[in-house]
Amino acid sequence: MVTEPPCVSNGSASSRSDGGSSSGSESSKDSSRCSTPILDAERHERLREKMRRRHDSGDKWFSLEFFPPRTANGAVNLISRFDRMGMGGPLFIDVTWHPAGDPGSDKETSSMIIANTAVNYCGLETILHMTCCNQTKEEITGHLQKAKRLGLKNIMALRGDPIGEEWEEEVDGFNYAVDLVKHIRCEFDDYFDICVAGYPKGHPEAESYEADLRHLREKVSAGADFIITQLFFRSETFLTFMKDCQAIGITCPIVPGIFPIQGYHSLRQLVKLSKLEVPQEIKEVIEPIKDNDAAIRNYGVELAVSMCRELLDSGMVPGLHFYTLNREVATTEILKRLGIWKEDPRRPLPWAVSAHPKRRVEDVRPIFWASRPKSYIYRTQEWDDFPNGRWGNSSSPAFGELKDYYLFYLKSKSPREELLKMWGEELTSEESVFEVFTCYISGEPNREGHKVTCLPWNDDPLAAETNLLKEQLEKVNRRGILTINSQPNINGKPSTDPIVGWGPSGGYVFQKAYLEFFTSSENITALLKVLKMKKYELRVNYHIVNVRGENIANSPDLQPNAVTWGIFPGREIIQPTVVDPVSFMYWKDEAFALWIEQWAKLYEEESPSRMIIQYIHDNYYLVNLVDNDFPLENCLWQVMEDTFELLNCPTEQQLNYRGGEEP
Amino acid sequence: MVTEPPCVSNGSASSRSDGGSSSGSESSKDSSRCSTPILDAERHERLREKMRRRHDSGDKWFSLEFFPPRTANGAVNLISRFDRMGMGGPLFIDVTWHPAGDPGSDKETSSMIIANTAVNYCGLETILHMTCCNQTKEEITGHLQKAKRLGLKNIMALRGDPIGEEWEEEVDGFNYAVDLVKHIRCEFDDYFDICVAGYPKGHPEAESYEADLRHLREKVSAGADFIITQLFFRSETFLTFMKDCQAIGITCPIVPGIFPIQGYHSLRQLVKLSKLEVPQEIKEVIEPIKDNDAAIRNYGVELAVSMCRELLDSGMVPGLHFYTLNREVATTEILKRLGIWKEDPRRPLPWAVSAHPKRRVEDVRPIFWASRPKSYIYRTQEWDDFPNGRWGNSSSPAFGELKDYYLFYLKSKSPREELLKMWGEELTSEESVFEVFTCYISGEPNREGHKVTCLPWNDDPLAAETNLLKEQLEKVNRRGILTINSQPNINGKPSTDPIVGWGPSGGYVFQKAYLEFFTSSENITALLKVLKMKKYELRVNYHIVNVRGENIANSPDLQPNAVTWGIFPGREIIQPTVVDPVSFMYWKDEAFALWIEQWAKLYEEESPSRMIIQYIHDNYYLVNLVDNDFPLENCLWQVMEDTFELLNCPTEQQLNYRGGEEP
Repeated sequence: MVTEPPCVSNGSASSRSDGGSSSGSESSKDSSRCSTPILDAERHERLREKMRRRHDSGDKWFSLEFFPPRTANGAVNLISRFDRMGMGGPLFIDVTWHPAGDPGSDKETSSMIIANTAVNYCGLETILHMTCCNQTKEEITGHLQKAKRLGLKNIMALRGDPIGEEWEEEVDGFNYAVDLVKHIRCEFDDYFDICVAGYPKGHPEAESYEADLRHLREKVSAGADFIITQLFFRSETFLTFMKDCQAIGITCPIVPGIFPIQGYHSLRQLVKLSKLEVPQEIKEVIEPIKDNDAAIRNYGVELAVSMCRELLDSGMVPGLHFYTLNREVATTEILKRLGIWKEDPRRPLPWAVSAHPKRRVEDVRPIFWASRPKSYIYRTQEWDDFPNGRWGNSSSPAFGELKDYYLFYLKSKSPREELLKMWGEELTSEESVFEVFTCYISGEPNREGHKVTCLPWNDDPLAAETNLLKEQLEKVNRRGILTINSQPNINGKPSTDPIVGWGPSGGYVFQKAYLEFFTSSENITALLKVLKMKKYELRVNYHIVNVRGENIANSPDLQPNAVTWGIFPGREIIQPTVVDPVSFMYWKDEAFALWIEQWAKLYEEESPSRMIIQYIHDNYYLVNLVDNDFPLENCLWQVMEDTFELLNCPTEQQLNYRGGEEP
Repeated sequence: MVTEPPCVSNGSASSRSDGGSSSGSESSKDSSRCSTPILDAERHERLREKMRRRHDSGDKWFSLEFFPPRTANGAVNLISRFDRMGMGGPLFIDVTWHPAGDPGSDKETSSMIIANTAVNYCGLETILHMTCCNQTKEEITGHLQKAKRLGLKNIMALRGDPIGEEWEEEVDGFNYAVDLVKHIRCEFDDYFDICVAGYPKGHPEAESYEADLRHLREKVSAGADFIITQLFFRSETFLTFMKDCQAIGITCPIVPGIFPIQGYHSLRQLVKLSKLEVPQEIKEVIEPIKDNDAAIRNYGVELAVSMCRELLDSGMVPGLHFYTLNREVATTEILKRLGIWKEDPRRPLPWAVSAHPKRRVEDVRPIFWASRPKSYIYRTQEWDDFPNGRWGNSSSPAFGELKDYYLFYLKSKSPREELLKMWGEELTSEESVFEVFTCYISGEPNREGHKVTCLPWNDDPLAAETNLLKEQLEKVNRRGILTINSQPNINGKPSTDPIVGWGPSGGYVFQKAYLEFFTSSENITALLKVLKMKKYELRVNYHIVNVRGENIANSPDLQPNAVTWGIFPGREIIQPTVVDPVSFMYWKDEAFALWIEQWAKLYEEESPSRMIIQYIHDNYYLVNLVDNDFPLENCLWQVMEDTFELLNCPTEQQLNYRGGEEP
């Protein structure tokens, strides 16, 4: 009766799973006992591993190239573009290096700082370009050390353009990209993933196409992990190049660089720089329409789409690299038409992760910074360890100061004039502030007919999730409960839910209802009476604080309260969001300061408008409420109703109402 | 319009909660970031803090005194008694010290080892008695060091009886309990909580009642934390003593020692030892019934109940200490009649916690040892850190060997003859083994008319929770799916649920369905075919292994799977049970060995019965299954149904069946 089972692996304790991928177990080796369950394998992989995984699975990918902006305002806009284009799911972005623009400096427009922002604040896998000619070894090492310190993990190693017409090789200097590749491997071992440039038509300065291929092979042999090509105009050009590379033994990934033609002038400039020739058939189309930007862009999109289709259909191209020229429309359209723009990217966690390697295991954050993730990342950038599994005891979480409210990656996307239109050129009373909040929630235009698309605490329109609460939020804001953060309770929705879902598929997500708002001390008095009634006492945790730090709470023992969690197949539990009473005291400084820094300062000193905001800042309370009974109907709206009812009562009735209160 | 809110505390970041208790935050100071949420404050408190908390809250408590057993069998029985009487919720137990019985040794009957077992394996707060006369300072320090190492935290400091009739004080020696108290405080600072004895009628050897009170005050001044009194027969005796103590400035808790009269002889012996006089009215009742044990015990219970009521009603007594004489019935009855026996003690976690201080933060365990928690504690006793929050990466969890299956705290409560009656004097086939499992589940008597109340893997009858699955379990065991561990799926029941609830009230508990069983390789072949069908592939995690460690699993990346978790008000999430693929490989050694050690060895070598068990041990597989879709109906029974159906098919149909399988 005994038959051998069909497949058994003779296993030791350390290698005996026949399912899943091996990369996960590799990265878990160096983590401590209390490690993050590997929800999203990519978060734990280096770029070359991600590429390999995509190659193996056959998932096509894309990447995006940007150059550093010229002005601080340009930087603000570029960061917004990173956020928007990041939504489409690029495998990485890269930032070019302009030796003339002080690329390694701390200026907000430097290549280094833009790449740093992309990694740390936008959570994008990022390649920093770096050129080597006309630089000393020490300068280059300094740049690389700085890049490493900032959490950058990938370098595109380039020669760069020599200064002046004539150029002489320096003995022992960096004359070619291969020298930089060797230097990186020598000084930084395997820390960086290294990318090098390939020239499908051969480098313009190379002796021959064949000689250039040999140079490329040298760069790969010296330690480059993959190749991105210069632009080209015909898919055959790339495919031939790729076969030629393989023929001489280049086996690493070769990614075609796609240049969507977006305008007559940018094309001409590029051709001049790259010394490439535009094929006759393209010239013939473009010349007649050279003053019609829209027509050229449409043509450029068509051209790129058909070339990309040919590349993808060849079966030799797992990913496409786009020279965006820092523009959004054409590239996004091409990606959407190719079907590789992820319309609904699955969120690995409910908040925006940072791609800094030291934050790889981070999987818990306080809910307060939900709409200001960049501020949270900034204020915790000096931490050596990031909470994972539990928030734990955070009696001294050491949040960095947020003194500079004009840090470019935290700056409002809207200029002052627009903010004034949204938030009121002139405020006449606290009620006019209530109206601003109400309009933000409702989406209705304000009295002057302007839509309120942001608030100091929310630089973006209402989240889809918050929309679920719109009606109730509108009602309470009208009454001076000025909400800045909220989430509905969720009792086990699929992790793939388009609004509240996150994490891998097959799981279930949960939330406790949360509400955070500013309100007057009169309202607080009534609210507290309501909260201390028997029916809310055990169910609702509250924490109320004013700008001076005077506070009232019923959260026991200063312990954090998990308000978002997920249960996944074959995984430990993830609880990415907590309400932590200690962190709330740090957040309240920021939340109160935003009244002044973002709003009051729009008005003249001593002006009535400014004084109204100042009054609110000085006298209102910031409140957070959690309804612990997540399987039941959210009771926080009833708390609000009861509070309004109490406020409507004449004083005598209020006194009677105290009967419901605990002694 | 602005009024001041009714109550604000001017708070700094470190002290600003007005709710909850302060003791929690004190103990959380020394925990790391990834700390256990304080679910059960008592787990983090020392005995004197627990006493204070009960005193403040007005919750009456009780404690139980035991003496070490004479034989190893007596030790096994005493440990079972600890478990049973522990269910009633004693604040602590204490173990007496008998200088003649080598009390500090490693013998299983020593005071030290019995107290160690109570703390570590039964999870009871325990006081170890210790006497000091006729011992050297070094001996005493040695005992105390050993006690500390074993996790004992409380000492009852006694003088002990001098050897011989005459007794001389030793200069610099330990002549009185106060010397021991001083020594403990001097050598161990504040590590131990110290208890001392009080004599309501004065110590028989004291010059006077007043002189004895002064001695008691000295013991307290020297560092004792509380007092337990010698027995007495009238409540006035204690109340007078207590007032006299307070009058001379003794302010620590004084706990009355209650001696339920349980028999004529034990009373006489005690009176002789304690030199107490039995009041005339008691003698008059007892003498006429001295040969009727039951009558005396009933009288003793009545007497104790009425005296305890008087003590509790006085308002001066927060707790009662019982001299159990290692018996169960009388004390339990008194406690139940007084209403201080906790009929349904709330489980702080789904498994039995250990009271060793280093395990204070432990809150995650693999599910495999659910019915053998003492084995789990034994095998992890050398760990320095215990998982909390997450099981995490346990690629080398370093489980201690469990070679000695006869460790007295792991030994079956039933003697060999009883086990043979339950498990069969003679086995004729594998099917007769199936019958034993089936009878254990069903509760029906076996062929010989004996109930099967334990199995090698389960020393206790079916858990209430397992009863929920009884019908299905019975069905599959009949078919040779020999289940040893299981739990139903639970989708958010109140934490106070009498069957599956745990943790503080107001929370919700969840479970994934779990099933663990031994079965033949023929069944495994069919099971694997079923499991690899599309409909189970993502939903069910499986891990199958034989005694040689050959195994098949689909759990990805060797990650643990949380199968029990709870959500509580104002707390982070607790996930106390995981299915960990690495730990399973350690458990399987134990699980397979139990076939031989507990069952096969009941029979003669070479006997058919023994060979049947040996065959199962050598050829069967151990399987665990988790259904990840906890909100849906448990699919594991359908997996079993499908497997049986497949086994019923003729071979040709089996081949067709493979159509449903993945390639």
